[in-house]
Amino acid sequence: MIEFDNLWAELEPIGRFAATGGYRRYAYDTAELECREWFTSTATARGLDVEVDRNGNLWAWWIPSGVRSDAPALVIGSHLDSVPDGGAFDGPLGVVTSFAALDAARSAGLAPIAPIAVVAFADEEGARFGMACAGSRLMTGQLPPDKARALRGRDGATMAEAMVAAGHDPAGLGQDDERIARIGMFVELHVEQGRFLIDQGASVGVATSIWPHGRYRFTFRGVADHAGTTRMIDRHDPMIAFAHTALSANGAARKHDSRATFGRLEVAPNGTNAIPSEVRAWLDARAMDQRTLDEMLERISTDAEVSSLENGTEVDVTAESVTAVLDFDEELRDRLAAAIAIAQGVPAIPVLPTGAGHDAGILASAGVNTAMLFVRNPTGVSHSPHEHAERDDCLAGVEALTAVLRELA
Amino acid sequence: MIEFDNLWAELEPIGRFAATGGYRRYAYDTAELECREWFTSTATARGLDVEVDRNGNLWAWWIPSGVRSDAPALVIGSHLDSVPDGGAFDGPLGVVTSFAALDAARSAGLAPIAPIAVVAFADEEGARFGMACAGSRLMTGQLPPDKARALRGRDGATMAEAMVAAGHDPAGLGQDDERIARIGMFVELHVEQGRFLIDQGASVGVATSIWPHGRYRFTFRGVADHAGTTRMIDRHDPMIAFAHTALSANGAARKHDSRATFGRLEVAPNGTNAIPSEVRAWLDARAMDQRTLDEMLERISTDAEVSSLENGTEVDVTAESVTAVLDFDEELRDRLAAAIAIAQGVPAIPVLPTGAGHDAGILASAGVNTAMLFVRNPTGVSHSPHEHAERDDCLAGVEALTAVLRELA
Repeated sequence: MIEFDNLWAELEPIGRFAATGGYRRYAYDTAELECREWFTSTATARGLDVEVDRNGNLWAWWIPSGVRSDAPALVIGSHLDSVPDGGAFDGPLGVVTSFAALDAARSAGLAPIAPIAVVAFADEEGARFGMACAGSRLMTGQLPPDKARALRGRDGATMAEAMVAAGHDPAGLGQDDERIARIGMFVELHVEQGRFLIDQGASVGVATSIWPHGRYRFTFRGVADHAGTTRMIDRHDPMIAFAHTALSANGAARKHDSRATFGRLEVAPNGTNAIPSEVRAWLDARAMDQRTLDEMLERISTDAEVSSLENGTEVDVTAESVTAVLDFDEELRDRLAAAIAIAQGVPAIPVLPTGAGHDAGILASAGVNTAMLFVRNPTGVSHSPHEHAERDDCLAGVEALTAVLRELA
Repeated sequence: MIEFDNLWAELEPIGRFAATGGYRRYAYDTAELECREWFTSTATARGLDVEVDRNGNLWAWWIPSGVRSDAPALVIGSHLDSVPDGGAFDGPLGVVTSFAALDAARSAGLAPIAPIAVVAFADEEGARFGMACAGSRLMTGQLPPDKARALRGRDGATMAEAMVAAGHDPAGLGQDDERIARIGMFVELHVEQGRFLIDQGASVGVATSIWPHGRYRFTFRGVADHAGTTRMIDRHDPMIAFAHTALSANGAARKHDSRATFGRLEVAPNGTNAIPSEVRAWLDARAMDQRTLDEMLERISTDAEVSSLENGTEVDVTAESVTAVLDFDEELRDRLAAAIAIAQGVPAIPVLPTGAGHDAGILASAGVNTAMLFVRNPTGVSHSPHEHAERDDCLAGVEALTAVLRELA
């Protein structure tokens, strides 16, 4: 398993921000382009053919002689970009274990009947342009190319401008049926972003489903005024309605055993001695089923409106993205769980749902036969420098993916 | 009163931001430097001698022949910079009416026994470097020059770097006793930042006091984590404690008839799908007396700590600036109120306290005999594009300042 260690050590320093210990690898920025170079040189060193598809996704193909290049391929992989100050594992663990598993399978003499590819989807986190899974959504037609090109990052550049600056032609963005047709199956390995596998005492698990998920922008509008001279009763302070709404969201998610988070805020004019004119707040909401999610959003929106009315302010709620529940194929899931259990010499491995969106979910919703594996995270924490996976569990991930290749290739 | 209209029309377009209708004139930036050029050309056109003092404050001197240049001068004026998207009147109204009043007094044959100066203090709002009244605080020794030079603005430049870029030498910053000794009296005219004069039906009033005022930075620390996968009970989300604290501050200020505002926030990492690791929130708090202010801060801080404890997060509270109550000289106040009432042909003009800090307060606390006049604001709103003063009330302000010159010069 020296290969895993070597690959991991090469990728680890790229885009690491020393002050926080977190990663800042945003679509088409310097650090992310360096990750792409790592992908290309890693694939090339293995004799794999590297492609960048029209939507910026990276592919490394192994087409053994005698195998038809147009046979439906087995694709494994994940993504390389990060959230702001994210951890090292979310995304990269799936790509590194894919290369290591392919090495292991080839060394053991695997003779596949169809091509195998390692993929790194572009801009999975949406940290720069605000659209999660942009690369896979574009490929499957779930994100219109005109809309994608016009998405503007916090640095002021649009996705189209960022792609041009990175040497990619944004004119080619959009649904890519030819490429989708080449994917026979897709299996994504990912670090777990919760504590399920800790509680189960297992290093690896298989996904059942992805919770439905929405991102909603709450815009609270009031009237800017002087913080020292304006009497409390004369105010139209949108921060007050936001504060009520944040507590409402927290309470609603606890009640429904769901998730609701206000993690991003923009305050205008954001001056210490000025009552704000506007507070924009982004709600990330997820629940085990659509009805629970709808009920929770209804409750939070109503509380936001009531509180705004009481404080002489106004609120608009805009859904930025809503993703329905996604159930992975049960047959494939059980087949992989069995193969991995045999490889590990255990009776069974755990199956678990996830609250996080993934490229695997996008592909599955587009009709691709898809599965996901999770590797235990001893902190249970993700999207943070505290995110972690022990080396032994990473190697168990490589072993599991190798079993997947043996089972499916 | 054509002079007032002309001067106002020249100054009005500078630093106006079309999208909001508000002003962005920050210390030593392009728009503020243009305001300074306006000051210089306005003074020069009147035969006044322009000086920039060691702390960046602008002075326009009228020293009639036969008047000793070292006699304690009567100084009138205010400031030219703004908060983000502030109004047109906060600051500039005091400078423009000062020039117009000096014109009127000279036309009427005023023969002063000491010099008269119009002043524009530097960086009153503190919008760029976070320190209100920086120019007058430096001059009076209330802000150490080393600390001032190192203040860093949101654009990354320090005050020292910004001064150098604007052609000023920051080496000269610091207490300027010689200059203070030249100020016999200081009278600042300002747009009212509340509704007192509306209720009184008066165009002009005289200040009694400035409320005590504190700016406090609340740093709520938690643990960044994935917004989709982290169970609510496993979270350490600092946004929740902030929301409780914002509501506590609002309630405490209402109860004490005081002011408490969270108008500025910084969230890290500020990603839609990340639980924040840190929320920094700035509290602006003011009350009619120090005891009330202390009690209110104690209540808000305690609520912040309790709420942080309940949510598995931590909070630090740091006082960034605290300014004691400031009572203006009663004798001077009554003398000016009487002179203005006579000029207006009314029995009396209102006297009022203010919740806002001003350069007049800084000079008064340094022992300068100081007074303030307020001009009615029909919206009662300030630090906002809605801030306003009717032309007739501005002209009443010129008339009042002219009466002040006659009374004191």
